[in-house]
Amino acid sequence: MKQLLKELRHNPVLWLLAFVPVVLIAERVSPEAHTLLFVLSVLAIVPLAALLSHATESVAAKTGDAVGGLLNATLGNLTELVIAITALGAGEYMLVKASIAGAIVTNTLFMLGASFLLGGLKHHVQEFNRVNARIQAGLLFLATLALMIPSAISQADASTGGFTQKLSLLLAVLLIATYALSLVFSLKTHRELFASAASGGAEEAPWPMGLAVATLALSTLFVALVSEVFVESVQQAATAFGMTPAFVGFIVVALVGGAAEMTSAFAAARKNRLDLSVGIAMGSASQIALFVAPVLVLLSYVIGPSPMGLQFWPGAVVMILVATITASMMTTGGRSTWFVGVLTLMVYLTFAATLYLLPPRAL
Amino acid sequence: MKQLLKELRHNPVLWLLAFVPVVLIAERVSPEAHTLLFVLSVLAIVPLAALLSHATESVAAKTGDAVGGLLNATLGNLTELVIAITALGAGEYMLVKASIAGAIVTNTLFMLGASFLLGGLKHHVQEFNRVNARIQAGLLFLATLALMIPSAISQADASTGGFTQKLSLLLAVLLIATYALSLVFSLKTHRELFASAASGGAEEAPWPMGLAVATLALSTLFVALVSEVFVESVQQAATAFGMTPAFVGFIVVALVGGAAEMTSAFAAARKNRLDLSVGIAMGSASQIALFVAPVLVLLSYVIGPSPMGLQFWPGAVVMILVATITASMMTTGGRSTWFVGVLTLMVYLTFAATLYLLPPRAL
Amino acid sequence: MKQLLKELRHNPVLWLLAFVPVVLIAERVSPEAHTLLFVLSVLAIVPLAALLSHATESVAAKTGDAVGGLLNATLGNLTELVIAITALGAGEYMLVKASIAGAIVTNTLFMLGASFLLGGLKHHVQEFNRVNARIQAGLLFLATLALMIPSAISQADASTGGFTQKLSLLLAVLLIATYALSLVFSLKTHRELFASAASGGAEEAPWPMGLAVATLALSTLFVALVSEVFVESVQQAATAFGMTPAFVGFIVVALVGGAAEMTSAFAAARKNRLDLSVGIAMGSASQIALFVAPVLVLLSYVIGPSPMGLQFWPGAVVMILVATITASMMTTGGRSTWFVGVLTLMVYLTFAATLYLLPPRAL
Repeated sequence: MKQLLKELRHNPVLWLLAFVPVVLIAERVSPEAHTLLFVLSVLAIVPLAALLSHATESVAAKTGDAVGGLLNATLGNLTELVIAITALGAGEYMLVKASIAGAIVTNTLFMLGASFLLGGLKHHVQEFNRVNARIQAGLLFLATLALMIPSAISQADASTGGFTQKLSLLLAVLLIATYALSLVFSLKTHRELFASAASGGAEEAPWPMGLAVATLALSTLFVALVSEVFVESVQQAATAFGMTPAFVGFIVVALVGGAAEMTSAFAAARKNRLDLSVGIAMGSASQIALFVAPVLVLLSYVIGPSPMGLQFWPGAVVMILVATITASMMTTGGRSTWFVGVLTLMVYLTFAATLYLLPPRAL
Repeated sequence: MKQLLKELRHNPVLWLLAFVPVVLIAERVSPEAHTLLFVLSVLAIVPLAALLSHATESVAAKTGDAVGGLLNATLGNLTELVIAITALGAGEYMLVKASIAGAIVTNTLFMLGASFLLGGLKHHVQEFNRVNARIQAGLLFLATLALMIPSAISQADASTGGFTQKLSLLLAVLLIATYALSLVFSLKTHRELFASAASGGAEEAPWPMGLAVATLALSTLFVALVSEVFVESVQQAATAFGMTPAFVGFIVVALVGGAAEMTSAFAAARKNRLDLSVGIAMGSASQIALFVAPVLVLLSYVIGPSPMGLQFWPGAVVMILVATITASMMTTGGRSTWFVGVLTLMVYLTFAATLYLLPPRAL
Repeated sequence: MKQLLKELRHNPVLWLLAFVPVVLIAERVSPEAHTLLFVLSVLAIVPLAALLSHATESVAAKTGDAVGGLLNATLGNLTELVIAITALGAGEYMLVKASIAGAIVTNTLFMLGASFLLGGLKHHVQEFNRVNARIQAGLLFLATLALMIPSAISQADASTGGFTQKLSLLLAVLLIATYALSLVFSLKTHRELFASAASGGAEEAPWPMGLAVATLALSTLFVALVSEVFVESVQQAATAFGMTPAFVGFIVVALVGGAAEMTSAFAAARKNRLDLSVGIAMGSASQIALFVAPVLVLLSYVIGPSPMGLQFWPGAVVMILVATITASMMTTGGRSTWFVGVLTLMVYLTFAATLYLLPPRAL
C-alpha cells in the first residue's frame, strides 16, 4: 500500500484516477450527456491504463517477458471481452464484430508500429525474439482464414445461412483448440524458445507479487466499468465530432479499448524490451482472434437472441488479412528501427483514412 | 529376395500384401460391390505404401536425402498421374482437376504438417535444409499463379473460352520448362545446396540397389492398379458413408493416393531426417503442380475428347494459394517443432471441415 | 571530354548515338512514319542508356552502392516522369496509369529477375544486402495497398467517385511522406545498414565527378526527348506488329522506358555487385509507386483537364501485388543463384503471355 502511494506521488498521471469515480457517478446522474461522458471516460481510462502497465511490469519482471506479455494480453483483453459480451446480450452483432476486427487491426498495426517507432527513436537498432512473433503471426494467419471462409461463402451465396452457421461453430472450436495448444507450447513444452533476447538493464524496483496481482485485478475491473460508459457514449459523441460509424467502431473504440496494453507496450519499447512490446501487441491480437471471437460465437447460443457466425464484411476481412501480412513481414527479421514503425503505422493510417472518408453506407 | 522375406517376417503390416491379389480378383468377380472394393483397396494400398517407403529409403540412403526425396516424389506421383490419365481418357475433367488440386493441398498441408507433428512429438526441435523448401515454395507460387490467371479470366468473362485454352497451353509449356530447369538446378549446377542439414544416425541396413529399385518399380505398379479400383469405388462408397463429392475428391482421394509418400515422409520425420520429409511433401506438391498438371493439359489434346484448360474453381485456387503461403511461412525458418505441425494441420482441417459441410452444389 | 571520346572509341554501342539527332529530325520531317520512328527511337535509346549506365557507375563508385542505386533510380525515373507528365497534360489517364503499373511490374520482375539470371550465370552464388531489399519491399507493399483500396472501392460501388478522389489525394500525400521518410532513413539515420555486402573488385577507372554528373544530366534529357517520340509512335507501330494495346502499355513501353536502368543493373550483376542491381530494380519500382504516381495525382489538379485518382484496373492491381510478393520472396534470403532469376522471370513471362493473348477489350 505504501508503495502504491509512493507511486501516486511520483506519477502525476495517476492523479487522473480521480476521474474514475467521477465518470461512474456522472453516468448515473446524467446518462444522456454523451459528449461529457465520452471525455470523462477517456480521462479515467488513461490513469487506469498506466496503473495496469506498472502492475503488469512488476509481474512480468518475476515471470519473464513472454509470460508477462501473455498475462498482459489476457488481462488487457478482458476489457474487450466484457464490452463484447454486453453488446452480444443486446443483440448488437454488428458492434461485436466491428470491435473484434478493429481490435485485431489496431493491435497488429498501431500498437506494434508505434512500439517500433517509439523504441526506434530512442534506440538505434532493436532486437527481439522472432520465434514468438512468428508463432503469433501463424496463429493470426489461421484465424484470418477461419474468418475468410464463412465470409466468402456467405458473400457468394446468400442461401447458405444454415451452413455458414454450422461451419462457424466448427471453426470456432478449432480456433479455441489451437489457442489452447499454443499455450501448452509456449508455457510448457517449448518455454525456453520464448526467453527474451535482451534481458533489459536496471529496472525500477518491482512491486511485490501480491500488490501487483491485486492492482492488476482491480484496475482491470475499473477499466471494464469505465469502458462500458465509454462505448455507450462514443457513438453519439463521435457523430457530434463528425466521424463515421465505421471509423468509430474500428479505430476509436479499439484505440481506447487497447489503451492499457498500449501504455505497457510503449513503455517496454522505450526501455529497449521490445520482446515484451511485440508479445503484448501480437499476443493480444491473436488472443482476440483465436479466443475472444470464437468464445463469443459459442456464447451467442447461450446469451444472444440468435446464434452469431464468424462471417464478416469483405472489407473487414481484407483489413485483418493485410494487418496479419504486415505484422508478419515487419517481425520476420527479429530487428527493428524507427522506419519499420513508420511503415507499419502508414498501413494503419491508410485504413484509418479510408474509414474516415468512407460514405456511411459503403462498408 | 532373402532380405525381402526377412522384411516380411519383421513387419506385420506387409502381411496385408495378401489383399493386393484379393482386391484385383474381387474387382473382376463383382465390380458392383463398391463398398467392399473400397475397403479392400485401402487395405491393399497400405502395405504397398510401406514397401515403397522402405525401398525408397534404401535408394535415398545411397543418393542423399534431396535426390531421394525427388525420386520418392516422382514415383509416388506416378500413382496420381495414372489415375488422372484414366479419368482424362474418360473425359472426366472435373475429377482430374479435383484430384490435382486435392493432391497439392494435401501434400503441402497434411503431409508436411503431420511430418512436423510426428517428428516434433519425438524430437524437441528439428532442423531442415530450408534452401530446398524455399525453392519448392517458389515453384508452387509460380504454379498457383499459372492456375489463378486462367481461372480469374474465365470467371470474369465467360466468352473468353478460346483465349483461356490458348493461354492454358502456353502456361503449361512455361511450367514444364520451369520444372525441367529446377531439376538442372537441384541435381546439377547447385547440387551442394540440397545436401542434408542433419545426416541422420545409424540406419537400418539398406537394401542393395537392385532389389530396392525392383521393389520400387513393382510396388508402384501395384499401387497404380489398386488405386484405380479405389477411385472407381470411392465415389459411391463415400455417398454410402454420407460424404460430399467435394470432400471425396479433395480429401479422401488425395489422402489415399498419397499414402505411399506419406508413409515415407512420416517415417523420415520420426528418424529426425526432416530434410527427406520436407523434400517428399513439397517436392511432390510442386511436381504435381508443375509437371503432372501441365502434362495432362498437353495430353488432353491427344487422348481427351476435347482440350482441357488450366482453369479451376475459385475455391480450389484459393485453397492452393493458402496452402502455398502456409507451407512457405512454416518452412521459412528451417526449424520445426510439434506446434508448427499443429498450425499447418489446422489450416488443412479448416479446409476439410468446409468441404465436408459444403452443400453439394456450392463449390 | 577526352575520357568521353576514349569511351566512344572503346564501346561500339555508343556509335548508335548518331541516331539521337536522326530520330529527332525524322520526327519533325515525317511525324506520320510511325514504324520508322519506332525503330529509330529504340536505336537511339540504347546508346543513351549505355552512357547513362557508365556515368551512374562513376558517381556510384564515389558514393557507395546504395546511394548510387538511389541516384540511378531517380534519374532513370525522370524518363518515366516526363513521359507521364506529357500524357497527363493531354488527358491520357489510361496511358499514364498503364505506364506506372507496367514500370512497377517490369522493374520488380524483369529487371530484378534478369539481374539474378545474368549474375548467376557468371557467379555460382551471389550475396546482397537484404536490409535494403526488405525496406523496398515494405514500401512497395504499402504502395500496393494504397492503389488497391481506391480500386476496390470504385469497383464495388460506381457512385463513390467523389469519395475515391478525396481518398486518392489523401493517400498520395501519405505515400510521398513515407517516401521522404525512407530517404531520411537510408541516407541519414541508418546509412550504415545500406552499405554493400560485397564491395566489388578492381573497377574500370571511374570518370571524374563533373563529367559524370554532366553526362548523367544530358543523357537523361535526351532519353526523355527520344522517349516521347517512342511513345507517340509505339502504339501504332505495335498494332502494325500485331500486339494488343495492353501488351504495349505494360510491357513494351516499360521495357524501353527502363532500358537505361536495366543496362546499369545488368552490368552490376555481371560484376558481382548485386547490391547495386537490387537497389536499382527495387528502388526504381518503389520510387515510381511512392513518388512518381502520387506526384502525378497531385499534378493532375494543376495541369490535367480533371483530377486523376489512384484507382487502377483490377488486373493491374493484382499484377502489382503479385510482383511485390514475388520480389519480397526472392530477396528475403539475401542470396541468389541463376534459378532464382528464372523463377522471377517466369512470373513476368506469365503476365506477358496473358497480356499478349488477351482479347483487346478484356483488361
